[in-house]
Amino acid sequence: MAREHVVRPIGVVRSAVRSLEEAPKQGALAGTEAEIVVDPAYAEALIGLSGRIRPAQEPAAPGEGHRGSGKIVVLCWMDRADRGRLKVYPRGQEDKPERGVFSTRSPHRPNPISLHTVELLEVRGNVLRVRGMDAIDGTPVLDIKPHSPGLDG
Amino acid sequence: MAREHVVRPIGVVRSAVRSLEEAPKQGALAGTEAEIVVDPAYAEALIGLSGRIRPAQEPAAPGEGHRGSGKIVVLCWMDRADRGRLKVYPRGQEDKPERGVFSTRSPHRPNPISLHTVELLEVRGNVLRVRGMDAIDGTPVLDIKPHSPGLDG
Repeated sequence: MAREHVVRPIGVVRSAVRSLEEAPKQGALAGTEAEIVVDPAYAEALIGLSGRIRPAQEPAAPGEGHRGSGKIVVLCWMDRADRGRLKVYPRGQEDKPERGVFSTRSPHRPNPISLHTVELLEVRGNVLRVRGMDAIDGTPVLDIKPHSPGLDG
Repeated sequence: MAREHVVRPIGVVRSAVRSLEEAPKQGALAGTEAEIVVDPAYAEALIGLSGRIRPAQEPAAPGEGHRGSGKIVVLCWMDRADRGRLKVYPRGQEDKPERGVFSTRSPHRPNPISLHTVELLEVRGNVLRVRGMDAIDGTPVLDIKPHSPGLDG
């Protein structure tokens, strides 16, 4: 079918969760803070991020030191995934029937790209502080998008 | 920073929208139907998709000929994007200030992966019929996930 493409990480997750064993299932980390450290080569791409609901007393300083309260979508590359797995036991429950990976949020899938809708707390230079990031420390980040309730909800 | 990874399309979008000029901005195609044709090599990964709110009179036949009414998230590779662009005029409005691509949903971004939350109408073998897919005909598909209001909303 169609040809291959190359993805290049634009940043990395910095998190207190350091191993797969510590990593909870998706959604269980709603209250936990983490950082997304963007490669300085891509810092310009952060301009305008956050601050969509910025209080009037905090004037705009795009991409630099101000607080936002919007959500963002972070796409990561799950580099420990098994790309050859097409079926999994959902949530590891081996008493349930196996399901195709496209019907689950399992990390194991042909293109192991994960999707994280997180709260953007702060942008400080090339570092984003976020809440609700369920990825282990060191996970490569591929893309960042503003969340849109209309498109994504 | 981190190393490169290779993505391999698992399918393709079949849509009546055949060119960038015809393609509306994101979200404007809410009522339009399209198909996602999954490479038969990955058909097994579709098992269990759809039918999460299946009427009782339509018994489960995983991945084969039944109607679903859930949403799915489709990740595509926007192969015509300019990967070197770090700033864009949002929605092409050149009278507005440029913004970093990570603060927009522009197709132009370092890793041009698009995110489409669409309504899954039907699974017929390796073909998914969906509503709300704003991608042009022939767009490579990288991944399919069930939409979760809790995770993605």
